[in-house]
Order: sequence, then C-alpha cells, then structure tokens
Amino acid sequence: MRVTLISIGDELLIGQTVNTNASWLGKELSLLGARIQEVLTISDDADHIRRAIEVTEADLILVTGGLGPTKDDRTKKVLAKYFEMPLVLHEPTLKHIEDFFARRNRPMLQVNIEQAHLPDGCEILPNRWGTAAGMWFQAKGKSVISLPGVPYEMKGIFSEEILPRIVERYSLNALYHRTVVTQGLGESFLAERIAPWEESLEKLDLSLAYLPAPGLVKLRIGSFRGKKDHDIIETKIQELQSIIPSLIIGYEDDTIALVVGKLLLKNKATVGTVESCTAGTLASALVEIPGSSGYFRGSLLTYHTALKSELLGIPLSFIEQHDVVSEEVSLRMAEEGRKRLKTDYCLSTTGIMGPSKGDSKDEVGTVWIGLSGPKGSYAKRFTFGDNRGRNIEMTTLAALNLLRLSMLDS
Amino acid sequence: MRVTLISIGDELLIGQTVNTNASWLGKELSLLGARIQEVLTISDDADHIRRAIEVTEADLILVTGGLGPTKDDRTKKVLAKYFEMPLVLHEPTLKHIEDFFARRNRPMLQVNIEQAHLPDGCEILPNRWGTAAGMWFQAKGKSVISLPGVPYEMKGIFSEEILPRIVERYSLNALYHRTVVTQGLGESFLAERIAPWEESLEKLDLSLAYLPAPGLVKLRIGSFRGKKDHDIIETKIQELQSIIPSLIIGYEDDTIALVVGKLLLKNKATVGTVESCTAGTLASALVEIPGSSGYFRGSLLTYHTALKSELLGIPLSFIEQHDVVSEEVSLRMAEEGRKRLKTDYCLSTTGIMGPSKGDSKDEVGTVWIGLSGPKGSYAKRFTFGDNRGRNIEMTTLAALNLLRLSMLDS
Repeated sequence: MRVTLISIGDELLIGQTVNTNASWLGKELSLLGARIQEVLTISDDADHIRRAIEVTEADLILVTGGLGPTKDDRTKKVLAKYFEMPLVLHEPTLKHIEDFFARRNRPMLQVNIEQAHLPDGCEILPNRWGTAAGMWFQAKGKSVISLPGVPYEMKGIFSEEILPRIVERYSLNALYHRTVVTQGLGESFLAERIAPWEESLEKLDLSLAYLPAPGLVKLRIGSFRGKKDHDIIETKIQELQSIIPSLIIGYEDDTIALVVGKLLLKNKATVGTVESCTAGTLASALVEIPGSSGYFRGSLLTYHTALKSELLGIPLSFIEQHDVVSEEVSLRMAEEGRKRLKTDYCLSTTGIMGPSKGDSKDEVGTVWIGLSGPKGSYAKRFTFGDNRGRNIEMTTLAALNLLRLSMLDS
Repeated sequence: MRVTLISIGDELLIGQTVNTNASWLGKELSLLGARIQEVLTISDDADHIRRAIEVTEADLILVTGGLGPTKDDRTKKVLAKYFEMPLVLHEPTLKHIEDFFARRNRPMLQVNIEQAHLPDGCEILPNRWGTAAGMWFQAKGKSVISLPGVPYEMKGIFSEEILPRIVERYSLNALYHRTVVTQGLGESFLAERIAPWEESLEKLDLSLAYLPAPGLVKLRIGSFRGKKDHDIIETKIQELQSIIPSLIIGYEDDTIALVVGKLLLKNKATVGTVESCTAGTLASALVEIPGSSGYFRGSLLTYHTALKSELLGIPLSFIEQHDVVSEEVSLRMAEEGRKRLKTDYCLSTTGIMGPSKGDSKDEVGTVWIGLSGPKGSYAKRFTFGDNRGRNIEMTTLAALNLLRLSMLDS
C-alpha cells in the first residue's frame, strides 16, 4: 500500500509551523504496514492543490489542512470540483456544529454553517473535536482522504475513523522494527565494525537504517513481513550485542540519561557532579528525568579556577602545576566532589569549550572527564571540535557514558 | 525566485525524525524574499531522487540529506549521474577531511576518503562542521544545491556559503524586517496591550508577526518595500518602547542570557547561582555564551534538601519551619550563595517541577526565585504548569529576567 501525504498551508512553507502532522501520520501509517512514498507540502493555492491531487499516483492520498472556515481554506472546494461532487448540506454535520457552539455558549456564524456543506458522494468522517468534517473520496481511480490541519482534530479523526477502515479495506504487512541505540563510535566507524553483520541482514531481506543524533547512532532493523520476523530480528540483535557489547546503551527511545538513571536506581547509588566546562549541563541532563531525586544529590559548578580551590580545597599550586585541564585536576575534582556531596559516584568535567582558550594551555575542544566511585577513580581525555554548544553536549553525553560503563563493570 | 525544497530520508517519511530542516530553510529563504513553492520529502531511493530532480520546475532546487558515508546515502551519486559529472578526488576537501580526523585524534576510513570524491563540474561548498561537502549544480537548465541532512552542518553551509551567493546571484525583494524580543507577557495579553499600536502599523502597510517561543514573544515588524522603510520602522519601534519599556529585553536574535551577560560585563559585575529545582539549567544558560567567564564564577546545585544545609549552612529546622519552597529559603539560598561564591549577584531557585511533589507542601508548578545583590535581597513567587521540562525552562528565563530588571534599576 503506497501512501502519499499532502500537507497544505503557507505557514508550513515559510517555516512558521513545523510539519509535525506529516511525521505523526508517517509513523502511524508505517506501523500499519503502509509505505509512505512521499510527503508533499504545498501552499493554500487552489491550482496547486488540484494539480497535486491530479499527478499523484498512490493507493491512498492523505491530505491535511485547508478545511477551516476562513478564506484561505480551499481544500474542500477544490476536491468537490475535481471529483465533480456538488456541495450539499449534510444534516448530521450541521447538527454537530450547532451542538458544538451551543455547548460552548458561543454564537454560530454563517461561515460555520457553510462547513456543513459537503461534497455529495464522498464518505463523511465525523470530527468530534472541531467543526471541519473529514472526507474520503473514491472516484476517478483515486482514493483521497481530506483532514483538517489542526493536529488534535486530525489525530482524533485518523485514530477513530480512518485507522479501522484502513485495516478493513487494505491487506497490509506492517513494517516491524526494533531500534538499537549506540553511543561511543561515529556512524562510519560503527558501519565498518558491523559490516559483516549488516551484510547478513541483507541476505535475510531485513532493512537497516543508521539514524545519527548528536553523540549517538541509532540502528533501526526492520522487516516488511511484519511481526512474524520478530524472532529473527531478536536473534540478529543478540548477535549485534556480542559484536559491540559496550556500545549499545539501550533500545527504542532510550536516552543515556534515562539508562544511567535506571542503573543508579537499580544499584541504589547516588550521584553528584563537579563541573567546570559543562557548567550544569551534565547535572540538568540527570535531572530532566522524573524521579531523579532518587539518585541525584547536587553539584558544585567550579567554573572559575579560583572556585576549584575555594569550594573543593584543591591548591592553586596543584592546578598550576598540572594545568586546569588535566588528568590530575579532573581526578581531584571528582574525588573532592564525592566527599563533599556525599555521593556514591561523582563525575567531573574540565575542558576548553571555545571559542577562546581560557585558563588552560591545551587546545580548544580538549576535555578531561573524571569519575570517582566506590571502586576508585578514573579519568579520560576527549578531543571534540570547535563548536562551543556541541562540545558541551558531547562532553555531557561522554560523561554519562563513562558512568554507565563503570556501573556495568561492577 | 521560486524555490523547491527536497528532503531525502526514510526516517522523515516514517516519522522517526521531524523535518525541521525544511522549516528552517523555509524561514531563511522567505526572509530573503524567495517563494517556497513546495517541500517534497522522499525516500533514500536512487530512482525517487532522480525523478524528483527531473520533474521539479523551480529557479532553485535545494536538496538536503543523503550525503553521509554509509550505504543508504545516495544523493551524491544520483546527482553526479544525472548531471553527467564524474566523481573525482577534490584535494581541498580531502585535506579538510584529513584535518578533521587528525584534530579529533581519530583514524580516517576508506568511506571518509570517498566523501572527498565529488562531481567534476559542480561548485563545492565547504563544510567546516563535518565531512560531507555541499554542492551547487548549474546544468541541464537546472540549479540544484545539495546539502547534508545533519541540521548544524546544513545550517552552517547555508549561512556561510549559500546565503551570500543567493543575495549576489538573484535579484530579490527581500522582506525588510526588525524583530523586537519581549518577555513577561503571553501572546494574547501582549496583543491586547499593544492593539492601538498594531493598528497604526496596518495603516502604514507594515506587517506584524507574533512569533512565540517558550517564555518569549518576538514581534517581527516587516515591509516588502525593503530597506527604504528603515526609518519608519525605527520610529514605530521607539513608540513601542514607550508603551512596554520593561517588557522589551532585546532585538533580533537576542536571548535573555545574552542580554544579561552584556549588562554584567558593562557593570563589571559577577554572578553565581544556587539552584535546586533548575539543577544547573540556569548556570548552563549563562555559560552558553562565549565570554561568559568574564562574569560567571560558579554555582552550588543543592538539589537534595540536605545539601542546602551542608553546603549553604541553612539549618534544617529553618527549612522545615518555612518549607523548602518558600520566600525565606530562596532568600537565604541567594544570600549564602553570594557569600560562598564571592559574586556581586547570586540567583537562587527552589520549586516543585513535577510530576511528583518532592519535599515541599506546595503545589506542582510553584517556584520561588531569589536574588541577592549589592543593594540587598529580593524574592518572587511564580506559578507555572505541570510540564516538568517546561517548568525548568520557564524558571530559568524568569530568573534571568529578574537579574536583568534589577540591573536596569541600578
């Protein structure tokens, strides 16, 4: 089943609104087993809309937007004309619109009554969430569904009216997929490491997609034969685990902060941070997750070099001797923080985020991350790039990953 | 100038990634005066990509995605074949890729070397942020730009390489506009407050767009008559300043953190934070800005109630008596922090971010923000909603605004 999505609205083209409707529908329809062949975003212009319907070849065309009561909403008229179905008053829709306004104690306008005039010959899809009804046209060799662009109205009609009809009318093989979240290797290095495994997927007619996100690479393994490939995919994931055991941080929507939080809760361990270059980004990543008070105690953000001495008791002479961005200083920061914050684990960060070099002699992009825990202390050097925001983000992800790996070892 | 955007990637079609690239480009190009006629999102399939290029009629076709080093990245090969330009080694790009890996102390792979093989005859757009170069093709009566899909690489190449060339090569009636950044009133209340002023803009044929962002409302005043309306727009902005003087935090891309940073530098003042509920988000907002070491010293993140006593010396009995989320505790936090961090100003946050209530008796969404400075201390209560992430963000913005207003008064 090949589906084309058509999103209508000038606000989408000029970037005032991000097209989340298309991604929501793409996800829902893919999971049903439909193949989204393209998403076409066009303006409110009547000619554009008609032409887009005309040239699109698909088993189903799903149009969102342009059904409101104002002048720039033209979809209904275009479709009525294209399918040669005159607009006639649809009594059940009129009654629904009257009720809709009455319940809200708001007066009904002429434009709202006009919303009850619908193409004679299409299937009406009731809209419980608003006043613009959905429509399903089957004519001229085309199957076209028109939905309002307001996200919650669109989602409501899709879930209640369209989804059951699609399951009934089309025989579908849902794309079954599982996502493996990895951290620690860039896309190309990961691809090289798992190349033979990737080839073995192709032989089984399984698809593999690399989905890079900052600091992460997600691997999506899919099959269009649907859920009956569940066992094969699980076996391949187990194989992958034996190839890159420490790189896999989780599955599906897992984030490194979530995974670390779960491990801390499981180990009944607490954590704190002593941050210089990340200045709270690491702590705030840990606290983003509801329930973080179960393991996160607090932090000392010793951004200024003097505070490393004043708050942590590290002598300035020690810092000068080793450089503020060094293995020795990152270790002392983590150890002193663990004592002062009274936590099981303490992570420390010290580095040069750029654009200028600050108090260190090292290059922009250099970071030392320290970790002090029940079994001792450890520090690791990283070299990132010259983008300040990205360096802070990468340092945060790397620090969380160090903590994850250290808990896995224990 | 009619532009069509083509976004390539299965992850966009199946809704795993929202197409924010298209909306960002749509906004940038519209502001330049280009007309985005459509956005076409298609799969990684070579035939699809070729066909999309073939059938699209536009003055400029801008393609994003499919330039990575892995097998499912096919855009470059398709374009080279379509424009009949063989892939040849591009020495400057190879050198850039080598440097890119050398600086990160990472080995270079064959697939990365292949990224330096580029179509012979297109214009190469250097990518300082990654390894996939941008390309501009002018052939077969078409103008096609290809960019990587990684947002910050795409944005970097667009801003530095493409934008100046578009301005040079196309004659555009750019929308001339100025943006006023406000904070402190929601969109509808702000609209009510400035209604007569907004009407006066309409009479001058100037456009006004409300661009809401979390905690902020940006007002974009524009004219399609171009720069010759500069003086009229400046006069209207001065009028607006007299209507809502304390709500205007800045102009264009100003953020509250940037504005506060500038005020601190101007006043030669330092700042620190004592954070409970924001847990580092406030500090990291201050440090996002290059040069923040000129005013930011550090923070104490006393997330756990015990740390408010251990690190700040606030007796637990005092906290129990007043509640951990209270005016008294927020004031003490700011005052003790100012002493211990040795700063001119110290901001404190204590609140209930949700979903659960934690150690306080108050409702989810309640926050006290304290500020201690050269002229004394002050605290203010805020009531936000029940969304944890948004509450943290709103608290951060409100705290920075308190500091801004206090420095304006001095």
